[in-house]
Amino acid sequence: MEKQPVIGFIGTGVMGSGMVRQLLKSGYSVRVFNRTKAKAEPLIKDGAVWRDSVAELAKDADIIITIVGYPKDVEAIYFNGGILDNAKAGATVIDMTTSSPELAIKIYEEAKAKGIAALDAPVSGGDIGARNGTLSIMVGGDEDAFQRMLPIFKAMGENIVYQGKAGSGQHTKMANQITIAANMLGVCEALAYAERAGLDPERVLASISNGAAASWSLSNLAPRMLKGDFAPGFYVKHFIKDMTIALESAAKMGLRAPGLALAKERYEALAERGEADSGTQALYKLYKE
Amino acid sequence: MEKQPVIGFIGTGVMGSGMVRQLLKSGYSVRVFNRTKAKAEPLIKDGAVWRDSVAELAKDADIIITIVGYPKDVEAIYFNGGILDNAKAGATVIDMTTSSPELAIKIYEEAKAKGIAALDAPVSGGDIGARNGTLSIMVGGDEDAFQRMLPIFKAMGENIVYQGKAGSGQHTKMANQITIAANMLGVCEALAYAERAGLDPERVLASISNGAAASWSLSNLAPRMLKGDFAPGFYVKHFIKDMTIALESAAKMGLRAPGLALAKERYEALAERGEADSGTQALYKLYKE
Repeated sequence: MEKQPVIGFIGTGVMGSGMVRQLLKSGYSVRVFNRTKAKAEPLIKDGAVWRDSVAELAKDADIIITIVGYPKDVEAIYFNGGILDNAKAGATVIDMTTSSPELAIKIYEEAKAKGIAALDAPVSGGDIGARNGTLSIMVGGDEDAFQRMLPIFKAMGENIVYQGKAGSGQHTKMANQITIAANMLGVCEALAYAERAGLDPERVLASISNGAAASWSLSNLAPRMLKGDFAPGFYVKHFIKDMTIALESAAKMGLRAPGLALAKERYEALAERGEADSGTQALYKLYKE
Repeated sequence: MEKQPVIGFIGTGVMGSGMVRQLLKSGYSVRVFNRTKAKAEPLIKDGAVWRDSVAELAKDADIIITIVGYPKDVEAIYFNGGILDNAKAGATVIDMTTSSPELAIKIYEEAKAKGIAALDAPVSGGDIGARNGTLSIMVGGDEDAFQRMLPIFKAMGENIVYQGKAGSGQHTKMANQITIAANMLGVCEALAYAERAGLDPERVLASISNGAAASWSLSNLAPRMLKGDFAPGFYVKHFIKDMTIALESAAKMGLRAPGLALAKERYEALAERGEADSGTQALYKLYKE
């Protein structure tokens, strides 16, 4: 790419907004569309250009990046008059939503038939990672497309790894979520145990946070649990979505994943109690009863 | 303590040997006893003095440190003609075995009745931590006894935290093991998922090991799982012992810990297949079938 590509970006929620801002900071020309326009206003003030529809945005972009809520939202914007019916041949589409590996393959194949390159590139690192451009980005699709998009990824993230053919980015993100899921049970149960045993849980964390029990969740979420801070870094409802995809995917591969199944069941119980919009650390509430 | 105390040390297995060596290095006079004398020979060569029985060792020691296998072994050396029947008034006993909080309280009370101070001080950090004097030590008992023993603990460990009354060290260690237990399920399931999805698991680890899925187990044990290295850092059989204590303890406090229960069940299935003497990372074998 000799001249700077035009980037179309769909999904300016908490994650997307941080990512668009990083792209603008790197000097890219970014057009944005979002279901709720109000969420894009601060970006428009900062130089992003508004487009009135998915189709309009897709038409003249060289690169189309999407990060929306659920697989059904991804389907809605890619198919049936969406991105793939409007993007020009030679364009590259990158779905950064955490979504199903199967859908990533479907997008890849339909895109390829139209001369469009497609990458699945979900991220981890949360809103802070998005804001600071320090996301981990796990990429699936053709390696040459990955190489061409590397400067774009580097504008948004730090740990950028090509994982293999289409769907591999999503599969890697699933592995990430599977690791977290069971670990959250352990963190909550350990804290609840410490409290019931009459220990000072802060002191317990001082003993266990840096040894063999160490984890990101223990260091970052356990202190919030103890403070009763259940504000979302990562939503319960989105975690349930991810675990559902992972469990379905595992079942298709004939893999029993009882830790994941248990975590999903517990999180669903939590959501049923009205905690779908809390942060994942709210799981601790189930153990306080 | 103006003059250097005489330390009696019972249990010169992998952990105990490293700890005795650290005590010798700090200039302490150490007498040792172990069920299997052969295991103490290298220490005797390095300056530890052999004692022929628990009773003989206990008689003239100022401080008696124990780190043996199971709670039943702890019971056997402390009661019925053991340490507490032979130690002199004014001595301090420190059980560093991972054992039950209830037993720690029983030892504390019986010791107190005889004018002996007792601390429960289980460790984490493994054989490497023992060898290098970098263990985490979680201590329960009277705080003044803890303060008096601090130089001894500092000879063996780095992260030394007083957790509260008798039994609190053991409870803290249980919290540590509970955190690890569920996390091991997540690590194994994520790796198995990655392999079945046709990903390169090493590359997946490069994507997920430093973000929200990060944990000591993921960084240290997942690579061993992938290499097929199931040699024990920490034995499956000992982990099952710990989880059994933790689960019984949780039940007594009315705490449901389904993640812990599931992990224990899976590890028991693993042990039944002849893996009791493997390292805890052997759990991965259950997912390879």
